[in-house]
Amino acid sequence: MDDDVPLLIPEVNPDHLDLLAHQQARRGWERGFVVTNPNCTSIPMTMALAPLQPRFGIEAVVATSMQALSGAGYPGVPSLDAIDNVIPFVAESEEIKMNNEPNKMLGLCRGQKIEAAGINISAHCNRVPVSDGHLVTVSVRFKHKASVGDILEAWQSWEPLPQQLNLPSAPQPPLVIRMEDNRPQPRLDRDAGKGMATSIGRLRPCSVMDVRFVALAHNTIRGAAGGSVLNAELMYVQGMLDVFTEQKTEVQLPA
Amino acid sequence: MDDDVPLLIPEVNPDHLDLLAHQQARRGWERGFVVTNPNCTSIPMTMALAPLQPRFGIEAVVATSMQALSGAGYPGVPSLDAIDNVIPFVAESEEIKMNNEPNKMLGLCRGQKIEAAGINISAHCNRVPVSDGHLVTVSVRFKHKASVGDILEAWQSWEPLPQQLNLPSAPQPPLVIRMEDNRPQPRLDRDAGKGMATSIGRLRPCSVMDVRFVALAHNTIRGAAGGSVLNAELMYVQGMLDVFTEQKTEVQLPA
Amino acid sequence: MDDDVPLLIPEVNPDHLDLLAHQQARRGWERGFVVTNPNCTSIPMTMALAPLQPRFGIEAVVATSMQALSGAGYPGVPSLDAIDNVIPFVAESEEIKMNNEPNKMLGLCRGQKIEAAGINISAHCNRVPVSDGHLVTVSVRFKHKASVGDILEAWQSWEPLPQQLNLPSAPQPPLVIRMEDNRPQPRLDRDAGKGMATSIGRLRPCSVMDVRFVALAHNTIRGAAGGSVLNAELMYVQGMLDVFTEQKTEVQLPA
Amino acid sequence: MDDDVPLLIPEVNPDHLDLLAHQQARRGWERGFVVTNPNCTSIPMTMALAPLQPRFGIEAVVATSMQALSGAGYPGVPSLDAIDNVIPFVAESEEIKMNNEPNKMLGLCRGQKIEAAGINISAHCNRVPVSDGHLVTVSVRFKHKASVGDILEAWQSWEPLPQQLNLPSAPQPPLVIRMEDNRPQPRLDRDAGKGMATSIGRLRPCSVMDVRFVALAHNTIRGAAGGSVLNAELMYVQGMLDVFTEQKTEVQLPA
Repeated sequence: MDDDVPLLIPEVNPDHLDLLAHQQARRGWERGFVVTNPNCTSIPMTMALAPLQPRFGIEAVVATSMQALSGAGYPGVPSLDAIDNVIPFVAESEEIKMNNEPNKMLGLCRGQKIEAAGINISAHCNRVPVSDGHLVTVSVRFKHKASVGDILEAWQSWEPLPQQLNLPSAPQPPLVIRMEDNRPQPRLDRDAGKGMATSIGRLRPCSVMDVRFVALAHNTIRGAAGGSVLNAELMYVQGMLDVFTEQKTEVQLPA
Repeated sequence: MDDDVPLLIPEVNPDHLDLLAHQQARRGWERGFVVTNPNCTSIPMTMALAPLQPRFGIEAVVATSMQALSGAGYPGVPSLDAIDNVIPFVAESEEIKMNNEPNKMLGLCRGQKIEAAGINISAHCNRVPVSDGHLVTVSVRFKHKASVGDILEAWQSWEPLPQQLNLPSAPQPPLVIRMEDNRPQPRLDRDAGKGMATSIGRLRPCSVMDVRFVALAHNTIRGAAGGSVLNAELMYVQGMLDVFTEQKTEVQLPA
Repeated sequence: MDDDVPLLIPEVNPDHLDLLAHQQARRGWERGFVVTNPNCTSIPMTMALAPLQPRFGIEAVVATSMQALSGAGYPGVPSLDAIDNVIPFVAESEEIKMNNEPNKMLGLCRGQKIEAAGINISAHCNRVPVSDGHLVTVSVRFKHKASVGDILEAWQSWEPLPQQLNLPSAPQPPLVIRMEDNRPQPRLDRDAGKGMATSIGRLRPCSVMDVRFVALAHNTIRGAAGGSVLNAELMYVQGMLDVFTEQKTEVQLPA
Repeated sequence: MDDDVPLLIPEVNPDHLDLLAHQQARRGWERGFVVTNPNCTSIPMTMALAPLQPRFGIEAVVATSMQALSGAGYPGVPSLDAIDNVIPFVAESEEIKMNNEPNKMLGLCRGQKIEAAGINISAHCNRVPVSDGHLVTVSVRFKHKASVGDILEAWQSWEPLPQQLNLPSAPQPPLVIRMEDNRPQPRLDRDAGKGMATSIGRLRPCSVMDVRFVALAHNTIRGAAGGSVLNAELMYVQGMLDVFTEQKTEVQLPA
């Protein structure tokens, strides 16, 4: 969360890589830099909110996560805590990250720092007996009027940079919109886009906020190793991984 | 949901039994009447809100349920849908009931009808791989200022009628307040008060609403048969079950 | 497994307590002694075999256990190993105990040592995603001819010492014989006899051995604390717990 | 189980297709014939026994299956029966099939009928809370002396016809031998060979029979659709699917 370190989702905030020149200068580094992945639970929610923020302005979010066991690593959660149970707590910092990280990622890069998005996010984080796949229920209030149809259109027409660049690990499409009333489900949908896509479903009005929906992403693929690979692919095509370029490696990326 | 039928939780709205005289008159019944149980998911949330409504006035609620498999009856949910999975949908009517039922139960009985409480409730209902025990995350906005301490005090000092009457199936206390950061959990807490108590935990401020917490009740005990038994006990001590009284049954209730 | 230490199941080998006089003498102890519980997986199988051994003579057993997660203690098995899975291994020593312990317990106490029963036991031990209750499939070959009816009669007429003494923790009956084709099941039957009974079902001929059946016991009640309590109760009524007797404690046992 | 219908596992009994000429003649069919898949639980055990039968002669088997939920189809097993539970029963016929089918498949094709292998098989079939992958513990007695090393060698050197023909769906190798002490496991190993391989582990001596081991196969891939595809591939390369050949379809098979 350091000011000069991008918290990167290539589809969401590729421009935050602009911080790196400043990061190197500030830290006196001639080569190398630090770019990080967000928390695996922030990802599905942030992917869903990213196309909505510039159009409608997000004011507030109430979210409840149902997080997979693999999010706790290995050995992680004891099986006696997991079987036939839900634990309404993940870690002291989990709900704080669910507020801070989307605000940083959806913020604007103003020269040497990110201006946080100013969204009021309240998250309840829970552990459920699922191996992989974090599911989040999301209720959103916008600054500007947005119908369910407007939101659907914003999601369907979203074509972020990694997909434009056709990066090898970029899922096509980045958001899989499910129209059935009982999807997405972790076991059926976590592998969408080879585990890199975010699945969204149950979009409907919310009487308290404005709209509500459910979002799902694979926490150990998109939320961990796969996310880092996509970060590297984005930086590679932008000529930022000079170590590879200089060494004329065999990595082949699409034109 | 008929106007003249009480939807009864003995701790919450025992005065709604006043509808029965009107119900009998309107329907031309000399003996007998209809009293119903609420939906098993409405119960933990309504039990938690009941002591707060008269003191602070509840304006709005955003809730997410994680409901047990037994809530669907038998054979109910196929095991292939349940294992290693969450289903973000219970039934068409489930989220509607989660809005309507608490409003009826927390409403005031004005002569021949209930004046609904007017709370704006938005619920996301989910099925999780748990045998028994419905868990609900709840974010609440009040009309009047209420601190976390005020709410805790309201819960702890609540002594509803079934507990005052010491009814055989009334849990003592009706609300089990957990102060640990990872409780209540279905497997550990569903049997509190012989399955008749509502367990509440994780009370903390909510940046979007005012406060938030987690509530749990046993869906097949409190939410079904046990709830009906407590309804009958309440009516019995009030002399409403004349059939039993007349037949001088052996049932012994506390003075 | 020391020669002078009884491995005690009160229904099976109460006479093995005769070792204690020898144990004290050999170890130079004036007061106190060591009595141990068997492995929690040995119990259901040994309880089922105990009434059969004196009548028919057991020659060999092939068994496969499906053991609950709680058998590994806490934190025990990581949830990622348990969910949607079976682990065909429990511990290096588990299958050895499944051979040695029943042979010691079903052995005869000859003065200062136990003469092992000489049963050839081969066990496959597995961990399954069940919270409590060890289930074992058992195929048995006898020395003397025994029909399914003979075995059923031996089980039903078994009345071991703890039940004769009506010890507080002794389940009545010690063996719950299920005649349905799909019982016993861990979730439905582990609490039989307050978790102290052994449930047996699916008794039928075995084309390779002689008969086969399934046995189940609660591993953390009968297989751990509850088993120790019953051990103590047996020793108490036999006047072996002099420390309690001398202190005139309030413990009340049936005449 | 009709005498003139091959119960086919291409690795095990490809010569049983010789029955088809007789089947067509007997039934008066000019084109078309019936070839069936075995029960999904018979497969892993039969695959493991196939290389052993011609070398050592199998006399008897005691097996216990731990079968996945998907084996019961959809909706199949109710989730309330599956969660936190084992059901020690699959179907009336399941244990009978476990005896009859391997005997037919491992039998010799003598002109117009199969001479059953004459193995005495006793199986205990159980349902466990696993989505996919049937695990079977197997204890085997041979007619001829066979050491653990002999068996390992027989498995490792087995190169059945589909692998020799390099059929598209034939797993390479057909048997995945695991040397770890806790494998195979359904969740980790069911997808071996794209779900077409049989994984075997825990090979060790059996004091009652001769050796024992654990075998696993994916019940809905190898045990159902995938098995049928491999059957068709075998028949196709042998020129038995003339309908395809005549229509000059685009199916490309390796030379």
